[in-house]
Amino acid sequence: MKKLPVFDDVIEAAGRIQPYVQRTPVLTSRTLNRMTDAALFLKAENFQRVGAFKARGACNAVFALSEDEARRGVATHSSGNHAQAIAYAARLRCIPAVVVMPEDAPPVKVAAVKDYGAKIVWAGSNPLDREQTVKTVLEQTGVVFIHPSNNFHVIAGQGTAALELLEEVPDLDIVMTPVGGGGLLAGTALSIKALSPRTRVIGTEPETVDDAARSLRDGRIYPPTNAYTVADGLRTFLGDISFPIISEHVSDIVTVREGAIVAAMRLIWERMKIIIEPSAAVPVAALFEHPELFCGRRIGIILSGGNVDLDHLPWQRGGL
Amino acid sequence: MKKLPVFDDVIEAAGRIQPYVQRTPVLTSRTLNRMTDAALFLKAENFQRVGAFKARGACNAVFALSEDEARRGVATHSSGNHAQAIAYAARLRCIPAVVVMPEDAPPVKVAAVKDYGAKIVWAGSNPLDREQTVKTVLEQTGVVFIHPSNNFHVIAGQGTAALELLEEVPDLDIVMTPVGGGGLLAGTALSIKALSPRTRVIGTEPETVDDAARSLRDGRIYPPTNAYTVADGLRTFLGDISFPIISEHVSDIVTVREGAIVAAMRLIWERMKIIIEPSAAVPVAALFEHPELFCGRRIGIILSGGNVDLDHLPWQRGGL
Repeated sequence: MKKLPVFDDVIEAAGRIQPYVQRTPVLTSRTLNRMTDAALFLKAENFQRVGAFKARGACNAVFALSEDEARRGVATHSSGNHAQAIAYAARLRCIPAVVVMPEDAPPVKVAAVKDYGAKIVWAGSNPLDREQTVKTVLEQTGVVFIHPSNNFHVIAGQGTAALELLEEVPDLDIVMTPVGGGGLLAGTALSIKALSPRTRVIGTEPETVDDAARSLRDGRIYPPTNAYTVADGLRTFLGDISFPIISEHVSDIVTVREGAIVAAMRLIWERMKIIIEPSAAVPVAALFEHPELFCGRRIGIILSGGNVDLDHLPWQRGGL
Repeated sequence: MKKLPVFDDVIEAAGRIQPYVQRTPVLTSRTLNRMTDAALFLKAENFQRVGAFKARGACNAVFALSEDEARRGVATHSSGNHAQAIAYAARLRCIPAVVVMPEDAPPVKVAAVKDYGAKIVWAGSNPLDREQTVKTVLEQTGVVFIHPSNNFHVIAGQGTAALELLEEVPDLDIVMTPVGGGGLLAGTALSIKALSPRTRVIGTEPETVDDAARSLRDGRIYPPTNAYTVADGLRTFLGDISFPIISEHVSDIVTVREGAIVAAMRLIWERMKIIIEPSAAVPVAALFEHPELFCGRRIGIILSGGNVDLDHLPWQRGGL
């Protein structure tokens, strides 16, 4: 079994990445509190470098490399934000980066990866296609692979968002994140369970790609469904590092309908005047889809990112 | 000549409205600083109650009313944000409000006014039409009129945004606001000139509705052009309270092209992940339209509001 990160690794990550990431604000909204009958504390990772929490894990993984490893460069596959994050981190450390991206990745994310100077290799939109393509890249080039979620240092880095959240709001009943590959959920669970064991950690997932919910329920990792979801960042699946952590520490993974994700995203835009991407709206949607779980509670939510193609918004004809 | 507000009136306003408005954050962006070769400090009034700085002036005016005046209720005309702000303030003080709105006001703003319980009376989209309609309302009902910009207490209230900005960032070379009726620009000038006389106050205006720029240049108030601008909140004109203050304290009013407003708005959405309305993008557009004025400077900008119809964005076919 692979070595699993623990809370000390999150603490170490926080120190390592501090020069390279933002301490993002924790936002509140009287309107949202009133609408949900809950007290919400939203960790605004849409304001993070590269527009998503992924900067945390990527910086931790890239700066944890030895000099020898770093010299070889890094590679990854990603549907978008992790790609930008690896390109960003590699640029900060002045090392080469290769990113395998799906051909249907949002143009704004592709442009950002290019801007950071990373090399893009194209693959199909199925996560398994991307893994095969990155395998070929690794064999040909000898670079160091940094998986977008199932990576020791990536998970430890993602846990720093919840660490900051708890420092500001220590007495939470529930902390929620979206779950795709499970890196954010696993890292969050490490921080929450170490600092506030009574706080429940809940993952949230689109019902069309509910592999993580089924994995937690049945105690085994299911492959991705490859179905459509507006939350394109969540079309991935758990791994052998993220899954054991989630199994041990996460209370539940709840699913939400596509329409609820779009409505939650629009609600946050209209009422809070901040831009979040569909994946970040998934835990917000859960508040409305499963009110019985959340009524009267103090709830922390990691708003995972804000990278959206403004020419194709999901409430418009054509959608994302 | 009407009595003009002075800086002491801004101080008094700050105390009066403190329970009812947000102290909004001052945002910075490394990306925007790099793009403009300037140090920008953005006062995020899009996060203000009702989504715009107008909550400040409206609350000041409504809570400055005597008990006798308040009992009669208030009325105003507005293309949107001041309407919401008066409805909000009147609700807080538990008094009736009548709002004269143009028939082409954005639906999201109309809905908000209704939600606050104000009565809407419709008028044409020309500012002069609205003034005539509100005159009729006043004659019929005896309510107290609160002009959206040319009002002693409204101007003093709007000045509190710049007061907060200077408290956080005292050493600014320039402070910019959009200018429509001139309430925000006049109030800002009162605060800036009292606390930091060396700081230049600059108004910014769409070139299609450049009446304020011409008014300042020629020393007389020009009527509105009634031309189209994407910054719909700025299709108004200076008054006999706002104009003398602006004449005395404002260094310049610069104009920007429509395309630059849309580009600046989109830039803020994409890079800063916050939602601002076209009027708020006007001073940002000025940075790119007149770089010679701003290069190397420390610049405060009041991001005036964030109320946008998400079904009709100005970079899409059909526009706002």
